[in-house]
Order: sequence, then structure tokens, then C-alpha cells
Amino acid sequence: FQNKFGLAAPCRRSFGGTAWRSQSTSTSLDLSGIYPPIATPFMASEDVDYRRLEENLLKYAQVPFKGLVVQGSNGEYPFLSAEERVEVVRAVRQSLPQNKLLMAGSGCESTRATVQLTEKMASAGADCVLVVTPCFYKGKMDSRVLIHHFTQVADQSPVPVVLYSVPANTGLELPLEAVVTLAQHPNILGLKDSGGDITRIALIVHRTSTQRFQVLAGSASFLMAAYCVGAVGGVCALANLCVSGRWDEAKALQQRLIEPNTAVTRGLGVPGLKAAMEWFGFHGGSCRSPLQPLTEAQTQQLRKDFSNNGWI
Amino acid sequence: FQNKFGLAAPCRRSFGGTAWRSQSTSTSLDLSGIYPPIATPFMASEDVDYRRLEENLLKYAQVPFKGLVVQGSNGEYPFLSAEERVEVVRAVRQSLPQNKLLMAGSGCESTRATVQLTEKMASAGADCVLVVTPCFYKGKMDSRVLIHHFTQVADQSPVPVVLYSVPANTGLELPLEAVVTLAQHPNILGLKDSGGDITRIALIVHRTSTQRFQVLAGSASFLMAAYCVGAVGGVCALANLCVSGRWDEAKALQQRLIEPNTAVTRGLGVPGLKAAMEWFGFHGGSCRSPLQPLTEAQTQQLRKDFSNNGWI
Amino acid sequence: FQNKFGLAAPCRRSFGGTAWRSQSTSTSLDLSGIYPPIATPFMASEDVDYRRLEENLLKYAQVPFKGLVVQGSNGEYPFLSAEERVEVVRAVRQSLPQNKLLMAGSGCESTRATVQLTEKMASAGADCVLVVTPCFYKGKMDSRVLIHHFTQVADQSPVPVVLYSVPANTGLELPLEAVVTLAQHPNILGLKDSGGDITRIALIVHRTSTQRFQVLAGSASFLMAAYCVGAVGGVCALANLCVSGRWDEAKALQQRLIEPNTAVTRGLGVPGLKAAMEWFGFHGGSCRSPLQPLTEAQTQQLRKDFSNNGWI
Amino acid sequence: FQNKFGLAAPCRRSFGGTAWRSQSTSTSLDLSGIYPPIATPFMASEDVDYRRLEENLLKYAQVPFKGLVVQGSNGEYPFLSAEERVEVVRAVRQSLPQNKLLMAGSGCESTRATVQLTEKMASAGADCVLVVTPCFYKGKMDSRVLIHHFTQVADQSPVPVVLYSVPANTGLELPLEAVVTLAQHPNILGLKDSGGDITRIALIVHRTSTQRFQVLAGSASFLMAAYCVGAVGGVCALANLCVSGRWDEAKALQQRLIEPNTAVTRGLGVPGLKAAMEWFGFHGGSCRSPLQPLTEAQTQQLRKDFSNNGWI
Repeated sequence: FQNKFGLAAPCRRSFGGTAWRSQSTSTSLDLSGIYPPIATPFMASEDVDYRRLEENLLKYAQVPFKGLVVQGSNGEYPFLSAEERVEVVRAVRQSLPQNKLLMAGSGCESTRATVQLTEKMASAGADCVLVVTPCFYKGKMDSRVLIHHFTQVADQSPVPVVLYSVPANTGLELPLEAVVTLAQHPNILGLKDSGGDITRIALIVHRTSTQRFQVLAGSASFLMAAYCVGAVGGVCALANLCVSGRWDEAKALQQRLIEPNTAVTRGLGVPGLKAAMEWFGFHGGSCRSPLQPLTEAQTQQLRKDFSNNGWI
Repeated sequence: FQNKFGLAAPCRRSFGGTAWRSQSTSTSLDLSGIYPPIATPFMASEDVDYRRLEENLLKYAQVPFKGLVVQGSNGEYPFLSAEERVEVVRAVRQSLPQNKLLMAGSGCESTRATVQLTEKMASAGADCVLVVTPCFYKGKMDSRVLIHHFTQVADQSPVPVVLYSVPANTGLELPLEAVVTLAQHPNILGLKDSGGDITRIALIVHRTSTQRFQVLAGSASFLMAAYCVGAVGGVCALANLCVSGRWDEAKALQQRLIEPNTAVTRGLGVPGLKAAMEWFGFHGGSCRSPLQPLTEAQTQQLRKDFSNNGWI
Repeated sequence: FQNKFGLAAPCRRSFGGTAWRSQSTSTSLDLSGIYPPIATPFMASEDVDYRRLEENLLKYAQVPFKGLVVQGSNGEYPFLSAEERVEVVRAVRQSLPQNKLLMAGSGCESTRATVQLTEKMASAGADCVLVVTPCFYKGKMDSRVLIHHFTQVADQSPVPVVLYSVPANTGLELPLEAVVTLAQHPNILGLKDSGGDITRIALIVHRTSTQRFQVLAGSASFLMAAYCVGAVGGVCALANLCVSGRWDEAKALQQRLIEPNTAVTRGLGVPGLKAAMEWFGFHGGSCRSPLQPLTEAQTQQLRKDFSNNGWI
Repeated sequence: FQNKFGLAAPCRRSFGGTAWRSQSTSTSLDLSGIYPPIATPFMASEDVDYRRLEENLLKYAQVPFKGLVVQGSNGEYPFLSAEERVEVVRAVRQSLPQNKLLMAGSGCESTRATVQLTEKMASAGADCVLVVTPCFYKGKMDSRVLIHHFTQVADQSPVPVVLYSVPANTGLELPLEAVVTLAQHPNILGLKDSGGDITRIALIVHRTSTQRFQVLAGSASFLMAAYCVGAVGGVCALANLCVSGRWDEAKALQQRLIEPNTAVTRGLGVPGLKAAMEWFGFHGGSCRSPLQPLTEAQTQQLRKDFSNNGWI
């Protein structure tokens, strides 16, 4: 059994191979597969560069991915206005084939803003939304509060909801107990877990095994391990950047990816991703301020991480 | 020597007692003194309740404070739209006597949004702006990036800028070296430090002693210690809530305040502050979701922290 | 291909199946397999209870494990004197069949004490030693210092050395760069990694793939994932406690183990392990002070974690 | 009012000025004042260099300190055997005038070892003992466990006990609730707090104000602030190194000390302290391994921290 991308997933949870768009109810959306989290290109004025965005999409179209994550952390969504966030999703939907899933980040700090943006994302063509944990008042974001927040959002969302836990950015992990409770909500499909705690991922798979709850690894660094304990796919910036052919040798790919991927995800962040994009023929360019381009030394180190592993 | 509130500050830095509004240049704005960081009251619909806001301002007017912080962390600014943030500042300015300083929070994640909001805050009547560290990409927010961000904002701001470091919320402390560098900017007045690391506060005072850089303690919990090492004032929610008379016995007040204040600042957050406001005749009410009201047990514990220390 | 315990390890690194004791040089010691980290039973006086220790060993002998870890974190070694630590190892060696590997914890805070204890452990019959990172001066334990420490120990040790990183206890992770450098030492065999960061484990396997460096998972919670990215075995308290038969269905076992195992390793610690030992016919008993027995509530919760997963 | 060292302490708790040795009961031991925490000099062989230790004591004798801390964190106690720890205390007692207080570190991981070492320290001439929190099983060291530990030790100690919380080394802060409970024990005198959280220190002073519980700042970096909120003294490596005259201008001294002191306490540790000792005519020398001497770059930076502040 192989997924669309030829990536052998020897120990993941089995599930029916039904195409998600042919189903009538949200809960049957099949998340399994690999998703590039796309970056947002900017012009020198720091305005969104829609032309380059479209050119990147053409390039992504050559990779047999399952869909796209738009406005995830790699999309610099906290630097975009609500209008820009929706507009980018609309632009992507127009270019993206209908059989590709569009997962749009719609999380905001307040519940009301998240509900509103979620509705707009659905109208703009998102197949499901990715909702990050609110995080500014992190000391107050306990299970009670987060369950209330995500329940409100899922109750009112026209499309299925994927929970999003990314502690490196939020300083907050969506508590296991909250995940288990929320997994019972009919409009909550799964979790993108970018924390990479494999024990927690395994425990979530185990505790939600009677629901149809799907876990996506938030990074290529722990993609294979996550498959191994029951995740169904991953949101992997670099995986899709440099892998355009078949994943016949998944394990070797995993090994070669882990060093450059870790350099980006644990070290250099979006500026690192955008630098690497240029090396692979995508438009990367600058981030919005305050994010700054890599220093020369950082660029050289990152280049070494790619070349040492045979990618460039 | 006593400040306006009668709080003896035996070991703080000396400075001229000039009134801040009589000066022609921004750098002469004197921040010394105590500021309530006001909460934002909401209606049951979660819309801003401007009537109750104004009633609270009338009540604050009975306390001889130096000014108000509007849209700080206690104002739930991350839950307000940019328009609401400006509107609240405008409403406060209309009620606030001209001799009271209005410090408005204008920090956003992106530099461009912060610059824009800063200009609007100045137009709405803010005397200076309080600019929090961007924090979502915290792994990338090093000194280089933050110096660039705050310099851009200060260069373009029509009013003086106060740096704001609040690691409990942002997961990020504005690095000491960045503070020292930014202290040289003519439009950067000082720092509100809510981290409470007294060694760092003393070091900042020491390293900026040749500039006219002013440090405010971000909480009543370490107000007296901060004065002791050279801070010039504080932004203290509870201090102003329950102290309406003279601070003839500052030390005893400090001791009695530290337990309820710690309960709020380290434990219960804005919902705790709003609960306490009700006990002292202010309008508190609910927060915007996802923040939830205190549980019954939390309320009782907080009430005990106040009553044990003779406040209620 | 299955290991001795019938645990399918579909994606681990391949290695020769040679028996470790038939080799003439230390570097050929094959660590692959599963090791119970034995607890130290105490009498009511808190003296070591050697009789009960031996009875536990008889019980362990019914499980086809690869060997034993003696004086790991589960053995309460920080509470034993150097003499007691050696004496326990000597006692275990006398009962343990020669074809079972004895890995003895010999780490101390100072390099000199570690060298001395390592020699005594070898004399007492240890096949290899497990050397934890010194940790009290954790702020100073950088790669330079740790490479120096482990090199000194490995240079002088009569038996091969296994590095030991257990950040939950030491507050310190042996840096990746230090591991990669130390992997080149001919007397350093491998690493027991109890941190459970699967990205790091995969990266260590990748970066040391040209050496014969072997990684052991320090807990059953991430055993299968670690196998998946190239680890060769694990040190797993509960795995051996409750699994006495074949591991025909490794994945199901992993799933059922993760909840009780996490309860012990992330929550209840040695007192939890010792409580569970009693339920499976081993002698557990009390820990040395300051460790205290589980509270009644903790005991009930732990029992539920076992019974919910069908172990008791 | 000034203490022996001329250090104005304008806002500390008042207490009787009785000399501690003239009292018949332990609870009357007055801890107020400043204590150098002495380093342990080693020979090239890494054996304790008793001759140089004595020469250092002659140099300390020129400073009017209240007493000495022997075998604190700066004494590298985790690298010494129990016998060495006692022997160093005995050697210091022989050189130290009877009117100087000797506070000896006697903390070990197990309760039984701590009780035994405490008795030996008392026999060797310690006036009181400084007992650090056990820390290896930090996840289990909750209030219940720590109260039990310190109570056992205090019950059996022939001399008064001072609690010792040093989270930078132990990864563990003695919980506030445990401190408040333990403050009621007749043989527990006070707390050396090296964490530097001034809110916590103030809260401890406030919560123990009805007992005769004395708090010592664990570092010169926050000495003045600690005095300000009610601490009675401090254990300050550098303070005594470089200040041999009167502290007529305490505040200026504090300001000038904070930078080099922070460099040592938050950065360079014991190797930094020992380097600085040489500059002031003390014997510093090497630490025991694994601690290594400063690099050349670290030495230059530290020298600059001292020279910039006018100390060398």
C-alpha cells in the first residue's frame, strides 16, 4: 500500500482510500497525504506578490501532493491583515485543481475573529480550515478555555476544522485531554501537530482510535516516525520543495531531509525556507518586517546542510 | 521626596520634576509615576461597552495617578480589531484630563502594521505609545531583528515610544543588548518591563544611565524593588484599584499588595483582574472569548487573597 | 526479521546478528535488544534488600531480554553510596547468566569519581558502563566540557562506554555535536537517549551512520518510533515488567504500553514503577527518602492506566 | 542604621542586633550580614590545596564579613567526596575566628546521606548548615516530598538549618508553600535564595513575618533589591572579593557590581569566579573536571566587565 506520492507508510493506521471530495459529509474528508505549506511572496514594497505566488503554484503542480496548506506559520499569516489572508486563499483556489485539498489557516486570538475569518475562508474556497491555538494569554489557555474556543469555531464553521498545535511559535501545546475531547466533535477532523513529541502523537492516535480523527505531522523532520505510530500524513515545507519524483526510497529520503529540514524548522524559520525556495526554482524573496533575510553566514550554513545531503 | 501619590521611593534615580506636557521635545516627557493599565469592558454581545468604560474612568479620576495605559495586556488588545483599539483610545482621551498622560499600546506583529497603528494612536490623542515585542516567530526575534523593528517604528512615530517586554505573554524577553542600543534613539523614552527580573532591571538602569531612559515596573509585585534599583514608576493594575488615598506607608502597602497582585498577574490574568474590579466598584465583567470567567473555586481563592491582606 | 523478543522492527538499521560476548574487541559489542532497567529494593531501614533483588532477577530471567541496566535512573543510584552502587552490580552479576549483558551506571558529577567508579564497575562484572552527563553546573556543561569529560572516561575505562542523556532528570541534553564527536571514540559504543526527541534521535543515527554507533531508546513510550528511525533497542522499565511472552503484535503492544508507560516516566517516576512492579509479581516497595510512596489517588490513577489498557 | 559593612539597608526588616554566638538556642542565631561563599582551591592533581585555602582565608579576614559559606555551589561540593567536604569545613573552622559564622553546605540527594553529613558538619565546627534541595528526580520533588525531607534533616540536625534554593543548578525552586510551612520548624532558621525572583522573595518575607525566618540573597546581583523587600543579608562571591573597605556608597557599589557579578553568576560560573579571584590576590586556579578553565575570549570579556566598572 502506498499513498499518492509513493511514500511507503508501513505502519500507519489503515483507512478507506475514498476520495475526500466525493463525500457528502465533512467527517469523511480524508486528510491522508503530504501538504506543502506555501510561503507568501512579497514585492519590495512588502505588498503580496500575487504573480509570483501563481508561478510558485505552477511549480508545485508538478508534485503529486494531496493539497496545500495556505496561511500556516510558513505563510507569515500573523503579518497579513484579515483581508489579505482571505485574498491569498482565494487566489490559490483559483489556480489549484479541484482535486487538490486547500487547507486554510483561519486562527485568530479571539473566538469571534476566528469564527468570522473561518466563514470567509470557506467562502473563498477552503476545503477545511486549520485553526491554531490562541496564545497571547498563554497562562490562561487551559483545556477548559481551549475546548470552549475550538467548539465554538467548529460549531459555526461551514467546513471541517483541523486543530493546529505549534508550540515553537505559540509557547503553548494544545493539551492532550483537550485533543481527545475535541476529537469527538463531528466537525473536527484532525490535528496538525508541529511539536514533534512522538510519544504525545502516539498517545493521541491511541486515545482517538475509536473516532475518525486524523493526525498530520507538522514537519518533515519527524514524518516517518509519525507515520510509524499512526499519523496519516504531513505538512512538510521542504519535502515538497526538493522531492519532485517518486518516494520509492522513503527511508533514505527521510534521512537526507532531516538535516536541512531541522536547520529550517528549528533554526532559520521562514527566512530560511524562502532562501531555500530560490535554490529550487521557486520564488522566495524577503519576508515582511520584522523578519529579516538570512545573514551571509546563515545562508552558507544552510547551503551546506543541503549540499552535504545531496540536494543541491 | 515623594511622588504624586505619596509613595516614598528612597533609592530611585533622581530627575527633574518638570511637568511632561510643558516640554517642546518628546525626549523630555517625564514618565515617572504610577499608571493603571485599564481593562476594556464588554457588553454581553462582546462588543466594547463604552458607557461602562467611561464610568470606570470617572472612578479612576479620584486617584492621583500620573496617567493611564490603554491597550496594554490587561486591555485585551489582541482580541480587538485595529479600529476598536484606536476607538477605545479616542474615547479615553476625551474623558481624561489633559494633564494626565495617555500611553497607548500600538504594537502589532508586523512592522508595517505597528507603524500604521502608531500613527492612528497619536491622532487619537495618545501622548506616547507602548510597543510590545512581536512574538509569533519568537525563535527569530533576536536583537538584530528587534532593533530593526523598534527603530523603524520610532523613526516614524509622531509621539515618543516606550518599549514593552512582557515575557509571560510573548514567550520572549526584549534582550538587554537591544534595550541598551535602542535607548540611544531620540524618540525612544523608556521601557515597561513586566518580566520582573530585578537583576536585569538594575542592569538596564545602569547601562542606560547616560541616556535619559526611563524604566517602568510592569507590575505592583516588584514595584518597590524596581524603585530601589532605579525605576521611575510602574504600571500596576491592582495598585490603583484598591489604593485611593495617600501612600504614606509605601512599604506596608507593598507587602499587602503582593499576594493578591501575584494571584492576578501570575495566576488568574485578566479574568482575575476583572473579578477584582467589581469588588472595588469598577465595571469588570466578562472578557472576550476565548478568555472565560473565573471558576467558583478561583473566585473564592482570589477573594481570600484580598481579604487576608485587609483589602476587602 | 525479528529480534530475540519477537518484536518486529521493520525499519531499523541493519547490523550483523553476532553475539556480543564472542567478540574480542569492545567495539563489536552488539547492544541491540531490550533491557529492563532494574529497580533497587530496600528494606524498611532503607538498606538495600539483596534477597528481594535476587528474587526479582529470577523473575526477569523468564523474559528473553538482552541484558540488564543496573544503576540507571530507575535504580535510584543518586541515593546510593559508591560502595553500594558497586555492590549491587556485583550481586546482579552473580545471578545473571553469562550470556546476558550487564550495563552498569557509573556516572558521577566529577570526572575523577566517574573514572574510579567505572573501573570498579568493570571489576564487579559490568560488560559496559552507562555514563550519565554531569549536571549540577548545567550552565557550564557545553559540548567542549562534555566531550572532555566523556573522552577522559572512555580513555580509561576497561569496558565500553554508553553515553546517557536523560534531560528530565539532569535538566541537560547531551548536545548533538558532542554525540557526533564522541561517536568516533573507539571505546564509546552508543547512546541511551531518554529525552525522546525523535528528530534528534533520527539525526544522531544519520550523522553517525559511518561509525558503528548504536542508539537505545530510553523509554518504551517512543520505542517503536525510535526503531523506525534507526535505533537498535531500548531500555524499557514497563516493557519487561508486563510482557513475558512473544511480541507477535508489536504495534498493538506499543499502543497498549504507551499510556501506563507515560504515566510512570512523565509523571510518577520510580515510586510509580515500584508500585507497578508489585502488581506484576516483582518486589517494588518503598524508595529511599526523599522519594515518597504514591498517594492513594496516584495509585488509583496508575492502576486505571494499566487496567484500561488490559494489563491488569 | 548600617550593618557591619557600612551597607545602608534602608528598608529591610528590623531585628535585634544581638551577636549570634551569645545565644543559647539555635533559633536566636542572627544571620544578618554578608557572607563570601568560598571557593575550593585544587592542586594540579585536582586534590584539595589546603595551603592555598588557608591563604585565601587570611585574605578574607581583612574584610569585615559576618561569616563564610563553605561548600556552597561556588565550593564545587558536588565534585568532592563526603570526607573531603567535611575536611574542608574542619580546615576552615580552625582558621576562622570564633566570632565569624561558619555555614556549611551539607545537602545530598538522599535524606539519609544529608542527615549523616549534617551531623559530621556540626562536629567539624559548622555553626549552621545550608541544605540544598535534592534535585535529580526533580519531577518528584514537590512540596510534600521536600517538606518531608527538610523536616527529617532539621529534626535530627545538632545545628540550625538554612534552606537553599538554587534553581540555575538544580532545575528546581523550593516551592513557596514548602518554605512557608518549613519556616515554622524551630530548627530551620532561614533561606538562601539564589533564584533572584524578587516577587517571590518579598512574598516569602511577607508570609513568614510572624516567624523569625531570615532570608539571604544568594547573589550580589539582587542584593540591594532583596534588602529593600526585607532580606537580612546575602551570600555574595564577588562582593567580598573586591570590596575591602567601607560600603559608604552602597548604591554606587551595587551598580558597579552588577555587571561583573552577572557575568559570573549567569554566565561563567565557578571558572569565572576563580579567574576573578586571581585578579584580586586570591588563589583561584583550576576547577575539578569536568569544569574547564575559561577560554581566552571568555577571560577577556570578564576582564572587561570588571575594568569597565572600575574594579581593576
